[in-house]
Amino acid sequence: MNYPSEFSLIDRCFRPLAGDGALDLADDAAVLTPPQGRELVIAADALVETVHFLPDDPAGSVGRKLLRTNLSDLAAMGAVPLGYLMTVAVPKERGEAWLQDFAEGLAADQREFGLSLLGGDTVSTPGPISLSLTVLGHVAPSAALRRSGGRPGHDLWVSGTVGDGILGLRARRGAIGDEDGYLTSRYRLPQPRLMLGQSLVGFAACAMDVSDGLVQDLGHICRASGCGAEIFSGSIPLSLPAKEWLRTKPGGLIELLAGGDDYELLFSAPAEAAVEIQHRAKACDTLVTRIGRLVSGEMRVSLVDIFGNPMPVQAGGWSHF
Amino acid sequence: MNYPSEFSLIDRCFRPLAGDGALDLADDAAVLTPPQGRELVIAADALVETVHFLPDDPAGSVGRKLLRTNLSDLAAMGAVPLGYLMTVAVPKERGEAWLQDFAEGLAADQREFGLSLLGGDTVSTPGPISLSLTVLGHVAPSAALRRSGGRPGHDLWVSGTVGDGILGLRARRGAIGDEDGYLTSRYRLPQPRLMLGQSLVGFAACAMDVSDGLVQDLGHICRASGCGAEIFSGSIPLSLPAKEWLRTKPGGLIELLAGGDDYELLFSAPAEAAVEIQHRAKACDTLVTRIGRLVSGEMRVSLVDIFGNPMPVQAGGWSHF
Repeated sequence: MNYPSEFSLIDRCFRPLAGDGALDLADDAAVLTPPQGRELVIAADALVETVHFLPDDPAGSVGRKLLRTNLSDLAAMGAVPLGYLMTVAVPKERGEAWLQDFAEGLAADQREFGLSLLGGDTVSTPGPISLSLTVLGHVAPSAALRRSGGRPGHDLWVSGTVGDGILGLRARRGAIGDEDGYLTSRYRLPQPRLMLGQSLVGFAACAMDVSDGLVQDLGHICRASGCGAEIFSGSIPLSLPAKEWLRTKPGGLIELLAGGDDYELLFSAPAEAAVEIQHRAKACDTLVTRIGRLVSGEMRVSLVDIFGNPMPVQAGGWSHF
Repeated sequence: MNYPSEFSLIDRCFRPLAGDGALDLADDAAVLTPPQGRELVIAADALVETVHFLPDDPAGSVGRKLLRTNLSDLAAMGAVPLGYLMTVAVPKERGEAWLQDFAEGLAADQREFGLSLLGGDTVSTPGPISLSLTVLGHVAPSAALRRSGGRPGHDLWVSGTVGDGILGLRARRGAIGDEDGYLTSRYRLPQPRLMLGQSLVGFAACAMDVSDGLVQDLGHICRASGCGAEIFSGSIPLSLPAKEWLRTKPGGLIELLAGGDDYELLFSAPAEAAVEIQHRAKACDTLVTRIGRLVSGEMRVSLVDIFGNPMPVQAGGWSHF
């Protein structure tokens, strides 16, 4: 009996990634017993070649970015990863070689983040590679961090450094230098802040991940929480390469605040939680920085300079349409 | 504050589809309380323009086909639909008009099948429209229908009629006539056999949905169940248009058995369950037909003619690679 090549390809590339509940990828669906007494947290993100990654990005790093952008959504909710489903549309001529590398990247990240493949679909496309991943995680009942919990007076915090994603993309396109590859790696390989997100449950009042630019994403928190926000321009955490770039580009800070692909956590908390938050972040070996505060009044984001003068920010962030 | 056009588009097109747990599509993820004492069933399928649907297919029917191909996977497991996440990659120039129609199709099917949108991602692409959907359902513990439960001696059953999908695609391409639009509608609008699948739990021994051609899909059951299968060539249920086509094309039956896009249920059961299965199918208002049996020996599919002579079938079915 002929064994269709589509399925032998799935056997070779994806079956090694399958975990509990995946039924060896040999059934129509996965069957999962949800962890008792926990709520499910589910997110889905797509990556399209030339839009979210470049044709010469290594397939392994594309797989890892696909998984990590989704894990970053779980991190923003304070959730623990459980598993994922994935659909892959790839041109026939890229076929197995690309998929093998792609799957190896996923395998490495599965081990790092403790989850496995539950199911999916592998199809051909005449167009760019189109990837979609749905990630499942879990949280204690009613414990998920939301965007709507921010209140005027809260401190505003961000993890890691801001703006490396957009600089990494520019470096990949040859527009700026990147001798040690730091910026490229920040663009290709986001660091989902899962430990931090989980340890902020009960301490952060609201949270989201910064994927489309800090100012634009902060706008989502403002709308969801019904308040405004002030960013202290002098307190934005920047990597060394970002600081160097900024020296050559006065006024460039706003570009870093509007650039996407950072995948850091943005969250607010009452001032009295500050010490505990620093403590918990340190336990996760993750930098967190107080970059501003939520304020009452109009739902807008202002940048406050070192003299305390607020300047409304119009610059947005990434929008697909 | 600028509201990015990507998000106002999501508000207009997709927020009306959001249900419980979707958090108004305004957070990083959905939060879902799994039904108590049930197992989750999860599947993901992708549709790519020109591969799975044609550029001039109405966007509304594309949305419905996307949802229904996934619901067909739930049907095959005997599961009850719960919700879905979806990622949509669409060229900027197709933009909102296409997405509005697409969402209207989904809205109609959400009402028909009793589920709602939980989350997802809407992105731009330079290439063909690429859609991915992850559907969640639930079953009683250990009750999910599997492909591996078939045993030699079981009757082999199929729902509905076979081969309309491939004839519908040919009609859409102008290769054959379709005056009343029946075949086109069978290609565009699969009928997920959810009620039938649910009522087969405890009666069918194995099940799957026929999406890549009956012979090829039956091969999956043979491999999973460790047995062979005989199809009685005279007993394949055919629609009137398929019968008419077959009259003009002697020997064409194998093309119908190898053609994809039928989305019927294929299942096996011990002979003593036959009356109960007929009874339950009738209660679901769904035709089921005994088309053969599982046999011991080699894991292969044979076609048995009206004289009882088995002919090994090499013809496969749809493979993307």
